[in-house]
Amino acid sequence: MKPFNLAAAVVVLTLLSASPARAQRSAAFGQTVVNSNVTEMEVQAAQEAWGKALVQISRDFASGGIEKATQTANAVLDAAYGYNMGPVLFKPTLTQGDQTFRTTRDGALAYFVGGNRNFPDDAGFALKGWERYEYRNAGVIIDGDLAITMGNVFLYDKKGQVTKVDKTWAFKKDGQGKLRIVLHHSSLPFVPEGRK
Amino acid sequence: MKPFNLAAAVVVLTLLSASPARAQRSAAFGQTVVNSNVTEMEVQAAQEAWGKALVQISRDFASGGIEKATQTANAVLDAAYGYNMGPVLFKPTLTQGDQTFRTTRDGALAYFVGGNRNFPDDAGFALKGWERYEYRNAGVIIDGDLAITMGNVFLYDKKGQVTKVDKTWAFKKDGQGKLRIVLHHSSLPFVPEGRK
Amino acid sequence: MKPFNLAAAVVVLTLLSASPARAQRSAAFGQTVVNSNVTEMEVQAAQEAWGKALVQISRDFASGGIEKATQTANAVLDAAYGYNMGPVLFKPTLTQGDQTFRTTRDGALAYFVGGNRNFPDDAGFALKGWERYEYRNAGVIIDGDLAITMGNVFLYDKKGQVTKVDKTWAFKKDGQGKLRIVLHHSSLPFVPEGRK
Amino acid sequence: MKPFNLAAAVVVLTLLSASPARAQRSAAFGQTVVNSNVTEMEVQAAQEAWGKALVQISRDFASGGIEKATQTANAVLDAAYGYNMGPVLFKPTLTQGDQTFRTTRDGALAYFVGGNRNFPDDAGFALKGWERYEYRNAGVIIDGDLAITMGNVFLYDKKGQVTKVDKTWAFKKDGQGKLRIVLHHSSLPFVPEGRK
Repeated sequence: MKPFNLAAAVVVLTLLSASPARAQRSAAFGQTVVNSNVTEMEVQAAQEAWGKALVQISRDFASGGIEKATQTANAVLDAAYGYNMGPVLFKPTLTQGDQTFRTTRDGALAYFVGGNRNFPDDAGFALKGWERYEYRNAGVIIDGDLAITMGNVFLYDKKGQVTKVDKTWAFKKDGQGKLRIVLHHSSLPFVPEGRK
Repeated sequence: MKPFNLAAAVVVLTLLSASPARAQRSAAFGQTVVNSNVTEMEVQAAQEAWGKALVQISRDFASGGIEKATQTANAVLDAAYGYNMGPVLFKPTLTQGDQTFRTTRDGALAYFVGGNRNFPDDAGFALKGWERYEYRNAGVIIDGDLAITMGNVFLYDKKGQVTKVDKTWAFKKDGQGKLRIVLHHSSLPFVPEGRK
Repeated sequence: MKPFNLAAAVVVLTLLSASPARAQRSAAFGQTVVNSNVTEMEVQAAQEAWGKALVQISRDFASGGIEKATQTANAVLDAAYGYNMGPVLFKPTLTQGDQTFRTTRDGALAYFVGGNRNFPDDAGFALKGWERYEYRNAGVIIDGDLAITMGNVFLYDKKGQVTKVDKTWAFKKDGQGKLRIVLHHSSLPFVPEGRK
Repeated sequence: MKPFNLAAAVVVLTLLSASPARAQRSAAFGQTVVNSNVTEMEVQAAQEAWGKALVQISRDFASGGIEKATQTANAVLDAAYGYNMGPVLFKPTLTQGDQTFRTTRDGALAYFVGGNRNFPDDAGFALKGWERYEYRNAGVIIDGDLAITMGNVFLYDKKGQVTKVDKTWAFKKDGQGKLRIVLHHSSLPFVPEGRK
């Protein structure tokens, strides 16, 4: 029997916790308001949830091995990304060549936890022992049910080493009021020739 | 010399007062946020401003005659309606036949203050001595830079008589962050045959 | 056993026929395009489908009585209106007083086919023997996944008599690419005092 | 006297050529349609125009030196980017450290043509003798007046050498119906350790 994965369940709840009901009674108006717009707070919550989810996959890999990590990664993809709504424009940090862009859910899962023979270069980015996460936005564009952010993400591993990436996300609010990643472009900072 | 019309200037300032800057520093994020979404508070402010503007035209007619009222009506159209962005879908309460829909600014001005020989049925709706205004929304839809409201508007004249209308508005936020009416459907309540 | 209602099924198929897939391969680009925008053709199709559906309810009432008409009306509400996404801002032509606005599905169904003791004034607008339908837009606003139309609708009954209404619709594209009515303001044309 | 820069003028005209009028008579409807949505063709035109503009700056540098190149770069920024509407989220290919993100027009100009002492690392990306440009989208999201693209851009220099980058753009249609870049994330492809 497959054991219940508490960690994965918690991740999903965290990812979903920012979800407002689609239609709300508004005290200000005293009547029904249907509001599909993204708010700044929702963007913040989604950005924080992404980092927590990545760290959770790493922890689950440490405590429960690849099976538990994969289960959590699946839960993260289903809760935080928009593959259920169509293709996602995903350029992960460490992909290359013909497999640079991961527009399918399979390609995204392979990137996070590896083990897919169709993506032989994928070592499992989420298995690298991430312990902590920070982000710093350079700017945010909010446009209806879409929000686009650009900035830096900092990932700290067990040894305290930091990986810094330049990151662009586009989040779209789905029909249940949940922000989902529909675009994700991550790249290592440029290093001039002489400094490599 | 044309005298300065203080009332018209105040109306315009009131109509513009809800305008936020397009790009704002956000304390929550600590960085630049560009947010083109409409908020509930902006919808409320725009609905209140519409009523104040109508009452102001009536008052200016009483105090300064048709010239002053027309000046204020012009200011209202320029500040609160979207004719500067393209045609506006405007079905005023008391229009009919081929002139039911007033998609041009001229047609809207004629409706509010009359005096246009191309619109001979227009008596000037805003000149009817309106003193007070209330609105009650049945519902509001907020969708990006658009907001649509449906509900009742109550207009009180000098004698305390009330005119109730069923009203739909669509407001669009322009490039300066200002809500503008791009659709306005107003109709007298239905009265069954036996009760007329 | 409940007989299969072919007419209702056909109505639903007609109403759904304008639905495109959400994500499409585009010849022009040669890659995946996710496009949630409403097109003019989709607006036209939705406006035509509304009229066909109303006429179908009338015909089903003639051929199969109130039960068949109600079944078709239910199918129409589920396929063409947005009650499944939240409240709909619906001001039917012939409603009044506290029941003017029908933001719930029950209120809309009562308007179309009557027979609901909670809406005692409703005689069933769709049961009036409508045979034919035309519409003429005064203008259309298309804004992302929303489209707003204003214009006239002409309904012809069995005797060839025409009922003309002033009508505003807002359609929103749902997650399956289907336009749904989220606002509907219908009103009889204004008639000046002396001409009634 | 400042000589007229024909090249810059042509670039601006090319960049503006995809602009439709905001409100158009539609044959299909026979009435006014206001449509602020982005189309696939507009996205293609904007992507092609970006590459032509970059090549034009290089050519103007070759034929007229830094002054002519700067003039053209200014014209490109004014016509193709959204700095006139607010900050732009711009992560150029070769920027780093505190100057990675160029949310201001000055920072963008410095990147393209250099010569700004506040951006000492900028050598002028557009001065590198670009002769030809190609792009290949991995996917496109069109959402109202916003379009987001992700894919590869290939730049060929005089020696036939190609520079390939991973690129994300977000275009927003302005009030005049012109697509403007509001986000631009460009990064060199990832190269695994052993292959550098």
